[in-house]
Amino acid sequence: MTTRFGLLGAGRIGKVHAKAISSNPKAQLVAVADAFEKAANDLASQYGCAVRSVGEILKSSDIDAVVICTPTDTHADLIEQFSKAGKAIFCEKPIDLDVERVKACLKVVDAAGGTLMVGFNRRFDPHFQAVKHTIDQGEIGAVEMVTIVSRDPGAPPVDYIKRSGGIFRDMTIHDFDMARFLLGEEIDTVSAQASVLVDPDIGTAGDYDSVSVMLSTASGKHATISNSRRATYGYDQRIEVHGSKGAVSAENQRPVSIEVANASGYTRPPLHDFFMTRYTEAYANEISAFIDAVESKSPASPSGIDGLIALALAEAALKSVKESRAVKVSEITGPLADRSVFQGR
Amino acid sequence: MTTRFGLLGAGRIGKVHAKAISSNPKAQLVAVADAFEKAANDLASQYGCAVRSVGEILKSSDIDAVVICTPTDTHADLIEQFSKAGKAIFCEKPIDLDVERVKACLKVVDAAGGTLMVGFNRRFDPHFQAVKHTIDQGEIGAVEMVTIVSRDPGAPPVDYIKRSGGIFRDMTIHDFDMARFLLGEEIDTVSAQASVLVDPDIGTAGDYDSVSVMLSTASGKHATISNSRRATYGYDQRIEVHGSKGAVSAENQRPVSIEVANASGYTRPPLHDFFMTRYTEAYANEISAFIDAVESKSPASPSGIDGLIALALAEAALKSVKESRAVKVSEITGPLADRSVFQGR
Amino acid sequence: MTTRFGLLGAGRIGKVHAKAISSNPKAQLVAVADAFEKAANDLASQYGCAVRSVGEILKSSDIDAVVICTPTDTHADLIEQFSKAGKAIFCEKPIDLDVERVKACLKVVDAAGGTLMVGFNRRFDPHFQAVKHTIDQGEIGAVEMVTIVSRDPGAPPVDYIKRSGGIFRDMTIHDFDMARFLLGEEIDTVSAQASVLVDPDIGTAGDYDSVSVMLSTASGKHATISNSRRATYGYDQRIEVHGSKGAVSAENQRPVSIEVANASGYTRPPLHDFFMTRYTEAYANEISAFIDAVESKSPASPSGIDGLIALALAEAALKSVKESRAVKVSEITGPLADRSVFQGR
Amino acid sequence: MTTRFGLLGAGRIGKVHAKAISSNPKAQLVAVADAFEKAANDLASQYGCAVRSVGEILKSSDIDAVVICTPTDTHADLIEQFSKAGKAIFCEKPIDLDVERVKACLKVVDAAGGTLMVGFNRRFDPHFQAVKHTIDQGEIGAVEMVTIVSRDPGAPPVDYIKRSGGIFRDMTIHDFDMARFLLGEEIDTVSAQASVLVDPDIGTAGDYDSVSVMLSTASGKHATISNSRRATYGYDQRIEVHGSKGAVSAENQRPVSIEVANASGYTRPPLHDFFMTRYTEAYANEISAFIDAVESKSPASPSGIDGLIALALAEAALKSVKESRAVKVSEITGPLADRSVFQGR
Repeated sequence: MTTRFGLLGAGRIGKVHAKAISSNPKAQLVAVADAFEKAANDLASQYGCAVRSVGEILKSSDIDAVVICTPTDTHADLIEQFSKAGKAIFCEKPIDLDVERVKACLKVVDAAGGTLMVGFNRRFDPHFQAVKHTIDQGEIGAVEMVTIVSRDPGAPPVDYIKRSGGIFRDMTIHDFDMARFLLGEEIDTVSAQASVLVDPDIGTAGDYDSVSVMLSTASGKHATISNSRRATYGYDQRIEVHGSKGAVSAENQRPVSIEVANASGYTRPPLHDFFMTRYTEAYANEISAFIDAVESKSPASPSGIDGLIALALAEAALKSVKESRAVKVSEITGPLADRSVFQGR
Repeated sequence: MTTRFGLLGAGRIGKVHAKAISSNPKAQLVAVADAFEKAANDLASQYGCAVRSVGEILKSSDIDAVVICTPTDTHADLIEQFSKAGKAIFCEKPIDLDVERVKACLKVVDAAGGTLMVGFNRRFDPHFQAVKHTIDQGEIGAVEMVTIVSRDPGAPPVDYIKRSGGIFRDMTIHDFDMARFLLGEEIDTVSAQASVLVDPDIGTAGDYDSVSVMLSTASGKHATISNSRRATYGYDQRIEVHGSKGAVSAENQRPVSIEVANASGYTRPPLHDFFMTRYTEAYANEISAFIDAVESKSPASPSGIDGLIALALAEAALKSVKESRAVKVSEITGPLADRSVFQGR
Repeated sequence: MTTRFGLLGAGRIGKVHAKAISSNPKAQLVAVADAFEKAANDLASQYGCAVRSVGEILKSSDIDAVVICTPTDTHADLIEQFSKAGKAIFCEKPIDLDVERVKACLKVVDAAGGTLMVGFNRRFDPHFQAVKHTIDQGEIGAVEMVTIVSRDPGAPPVDYIKRSGGIFRDMTIHDFDMARFLLGEEIDTVSAQASVLVDPDIGTAGDYDSVSVMLSTASGKHATISNSRRATYGYDQRIEVHGSKGAVSAENQRPVSIEVANASGYTRPPLHDFFMTRYTEAYANEISAFIDAVESKSPASPSGIDGLIALALAEAALKSVKESRAVKVSEITGPLADRSVFQGR
Repeated sequence: MTTRFGLLGAGRIGKVHAKAISSNPKAQLVAVADAFEKAANDLASQYGCAVRSVGEILKSSDIDAVVICTPTDTHADLIEQFSKAGKAIFCEKPIDLDVERVKACLKVVDAAGGTLMVGFNRRFDPHFQAVKHTIDQGEIGAVEMVTIVSRDPGAPPVDYIKRSGGIFRDMTIHDFDMARFLLGEEIDTVSAQASVLVDPDIGTAGDYDSVSVMLSTASGKHATISNSRRATYGYDQRIEVHGSKGAVSAENQRPVSIEVANASGYTRPPLHDFFMTRYTEAYANEISAFIDAVESKSPASPSGIDGLIALALAEAALKSVKESRAVKVSEITGPLADRSVFQGR
C-alpha cells in the first residue's frame, strides 16, 4: 500500500518533507503546489511529481494526504478545507498563532473525523526517542526535572521574526512540546523571562531573542527551557531528564566526530549548522509515523490537541513575561473540560 | 610568615578546614574549640593542636585568624566578637538566616575594619575558576545565560533541614553566589518554583527538595538554577555559560575516570559522593586565598556583602515561590545605596 | 547523466550496494545476477530491476558498470571479462587471495584501459575522511604514528573463515588499506603476531582470531593494528594519527547517543552492531565516488594497485607470524618497479 | 607507628618523593643526601629535615628506610649497601641498565632478607588501579589484548638521553611493567620497531624517539605499546584492556576539565604537562604502599624481580629492533628457573 501525497508549499521546510516522502518506500509524492511558481516547478522536476494548484490538489482523487508547509496564516483554513475533503493532513507547527482560531479549526477536524498530525519533528529524533524509551522502561524512576537547552545557530531575518508570532510561538513551541512529551503530565504553570541580547532589531520588532522558561505540573514536576537565537558553536539541542532513580540525557550531534589535539587542547568540530541536517532522521521517521497513522486509520500523534497545548504554553509564557508572574495554563486554554472534543485525529 | 589559626567548630566542615589549614605551608592550626568536647579532642590530637574554649581563643595572642564552623545561629555573634578582637575571620555560609541581622553584623565588621571572608568554596574550584578565567579573557564574548545544575547525592536528615533555613538558604545559596560570580552583573529579579518530590518528610518540615530558579539582571542577562536533594548518580555540579561569542562549561567530576564496555554499553563510574571529595582542591585554595588576604591586609573575596546578597537572593526566591511572581532583589535588600558600607573587608 | 548498473551477487554485501545505488540520483540499478535464483529475484523485486545472468549482463548494452559482490574466487575472472567488455568495474575486496593472480588480472585491466575501483569502503566514511582531511591540511604536521583498532562484534561462521583466505586477507586488509591511506608513504616492513583466543574452531580451521600488526615505512613512520573477531560492546572501529604538531582521532559510532546515569554510573549504549549500519554513509559515498570516476573517465581510487598492495601486506603479515620476524613488503610484491603498469584505472 | 626515611638524591624525582613522604601521616623524612650540596640544603630546609651524607644515613639508627633517587649507575651498589645495613629500600627504576648486574644485586637483597620495592609508580595511579580492579573482578572476562599509549610532552636533553640506557630502558620500561601488571601472565616474546622522528640529535646519540612494541604471552595474549618522546597536546598516558566479556580503559587526565565552544568547535584544555602533576596521587599511594610493606614486613610489590623483568623486556625490545625479529624473553633472562631466588622482598 502506498500513501499518495500532495505537498502544499515548496519552501525550505517543504523541501525537507519532499525528500522524506520520496525516500519512503510506502509513499509517493504526486503533486506540489506553491504560489511561487518557480519553487513548485523546481521541486516537481527534482522529485518527478506534478505541479497543481491547491484547489486542484483538494479535488485530486489520486491524493490521499497533504503536507501543509505554507505560511502560518493559511494553516487553519487549509486544514479545514482538506479535512472536509477527506484528506489526511500533516501540518507544520503552529496551526495558527491564535488559540481560539486553533480551537475552532480542531472542531472542524473532529467533525470531519479525519487524521491530523502536527509537525513536532523532534519527537521523532532517534536520540530523543531513546530518552523517552528509557523513561518509559522505568530506568530513571519517576520523572522529576526536565532540562531543555535549545539554541539556534543564528537569528532569522527580522522580516521572518515579524510574521513568526514571536520567539515563544515560533521557537520555544518545540521545547514546550518536548517538555510535555517527556514530563508525562500536563503542565500547570508557566514562568518566563525574556530579553534582547543578540540583535536589537529583534527588540525593535517587538520580539525577544533570549528566553528562559520554568514549567511546573500539578504534582510538582519541573521543566526548564533555555533558548537563544544565536549560538556560535552550532545548533544546540540538548535534553536531560532527572528522575527518582537516575537521569537520562541526549547530547548534541555533529556531522563528523573527530578530535584534533595540539598545544591548544583537544578540539571537536562544531555542531550541525541547522535543523535540516540535525533532524534528517527525525523528518524521515515523522513522515513514516504519519503514513502509519493514515494506513491504519488510527489517531495521529502529535495531534491537533498537542499543537493547541504547545501554543497555549507559548501564550502563557508571553503573558508571564509581560506580567512578571507565574501564569496558569488554564488562564489561556480555559478548563479544557471539553478536551476529548479536540482529539485532532 | 605563618597565619596562626583557631578553629571554631570541629564538625564535618570543621574537619575539612582543619585538613586544609594543616596542609598549607603558610598556616598553622593552633587551637580548636567545640561545645562537644570529644570532637575537639579528636581533631586536636589528629592535627597536633590545642583544645581551647571560644573565649580563650578570643583572647589568644598566638592566634591571628579564626575559621567559624559552628551552628549558623552563632555566626553573626562570633563574627562581631572576633572582629572587635582584631582577628581575621573566615566564616562558613550563611552569616545568618536573617538579612537584617547580617546587615547589622557587617556594620560591626566595617567599624572594626577587619578581614571577613565568607565560605563560598565553589569559587575556588579549579574547574569553575577556569570557567571564570575563560570569561574574563573574553573568549566567549559578553555573558548572556548562565546555567547551573546542582544536585546532592542524598537529602540530609530532616533535623538538619529544620535548622537549615530551607533549601534556598542552605543549598541554593551556593548557586546564587556562583551565578553572581559568573554573570558579572548584579541580579535584579528572581523567579522560583519549588516542590517536594524526594521525601515527604521534608515537606512536612516546611521545606522543599526540588527547586528551579530563574534570575535576570538589569541588562537582561539570564541565569537558571536546578536543584534536587537527591541524585542517584552522585554529587552533580555543573555550570555552563553561554555568551555572544561562544560558551564554556565545567563538567562533573568523578574519583576515577575509567570506562567499562560490554554488551550493555559503555559505563563510567558515578560521580564523587559528596562535597568533601568533590571540592578538596577548592577548600585548599579557599584557605590559601584567605591567608593571602590576611597577610596582605587586602579585602577578602567573597566578602560579607557577597554573603549578604546571596542570602537576599535566597529570600527573594522563597518569596517568589510563595507569591507566584518575579521578585525584585531590592524588595529584600532595600536600595543598598549604602552598599559601600558593607565591604566586609 | 545516469550510470546504469548491473549487480553481480545478491548476498549481504550485494544488498548494501543495491541500496546505495538505488538511493543515488545519478545511478540506476538495471539488473542483478545471482547463482541463487531466489536471492536475485528478491532483490530485483525490492529495487524494481531485472534479473539477468552474468553472461547477459556482460552483453547488455544498457549497462555501463558492474558491482562485483560474488564469491572471492570469481572476482579476478569477472574483472577480466567485464574489463574486456568495456564495462566500468567496482569490485569488492579482495581481487583474489593470490598476489600473482591479482597482478595478472590488473595487467588485463590495464590493457583494456577500463575503470576499476576496489571496495575499501572505510576510505569513504565521513569521520575517517575528516581525519584524512585534517592531515592533508597540515593540522597535525608530519604523520608519525597511526593507530588502528578494529574489532568485529562476533566471529563469522567457520565455513566462512575457511574460504576467507584468513584473518589478514579478510579482515585486516581493510586496516592495511587505511594505514596506507593515512600514512601517506608506502609501507616497507610488516611484523605481526596472531593467536586464537575467541573460538578454538577458528584455530582448527587454520586461522587466527586475534592479531596485532606493526608496520613501518622507509622513513620510519609507524602504524599499529589491533584486530579481534569478537567485541561484546559492538563494532569497534577507531583510528588515531599522531603527528609532529598534534594528533587527530575518529571515535566509535553508536546508533543513539544518549547517556543514562544512576547509582551504577553513567552508561552510553553499545556501538553499531556491524558494518552495514556503521558504514551506511561510507557505502553511499563510495558508490558516488565510483560514479564520478565513471562519468569523468578518470582513474578510480582506491585502485586495483591499492587492492594488490593491501593483499601483499596481508601476505607479509602471515609470513611474519609464521617466521617470527619482520617481513619486507618487497619480499611479497617484488620490486614493483613496474608499478605504473598496475594503475587499475 | 612512623616509618623514618632517608632520601638519597634531591633532584627532580627526589623532590616528588620528599613531598609524598612529608604528606604521609605514617612517615617522617629524617634526612636527605645529595652530592650537590645546595640541592640537599634546599630540600632539607623546605621539609625541615637534616642533611647527611650517604654514609651517615647508612649508619643512622633513626632511619628505617631509604628512597634511592640517585643516578642509575649508583642504584645497585646502594641497594646492596643499605640492604646489608638492614634498611628497607625503595629504589627508582631501573635498578641497573645491565640485567646481570641486577640479578647479582637481587641475590644480595635476598641474602639480606630485606624489603626492596622498585618505583613503577603507575601501578599506583587510581585510574590504572581501577582498571586492574575491574579486570580482577572478572568484569571483562579473560584478558586478551592490552593497548598502551604513552607519550611524553617533549624529549629530555640529549645529555640525559645518553645516560638513560635508551628509550626502551628509560621510558618504555614503565609500559613493560604496566603490560605485565595487566596481562596477568608473563610475556614470552617481544617484537619492536623504532625510529627517530622527533629529534635527529637523539639518533646521533644512538637512541630512538618513536617506538612501537608488540608483546605476546605463552597462551597468546597480546599487548602493544606506542611511545613517542613528543606529544604537543601534553602527557599522553592511556591504557585499554580488551577481554572476552568486555573492555576497560583509562582515559587521559587534564588539570582542568572545562570545554569552550565557539565557531571553531568544542575545545578542552591540553593534558597534564608531565608526570609530576599527572601522577601526584600515584606517588603518594606508592610511598604509602611501601610503608605498609615496611610496617608489615611483607614483600613489597613491585619487587626487585619486577624491576628485573621489565629491564629484560627492554633489552629484548632493543634486540628485536637490531635483528628485525621476534625475541624470546628467555633469550635475555635465561630460564629464570631460579626465579624464586629473586623475590626481592
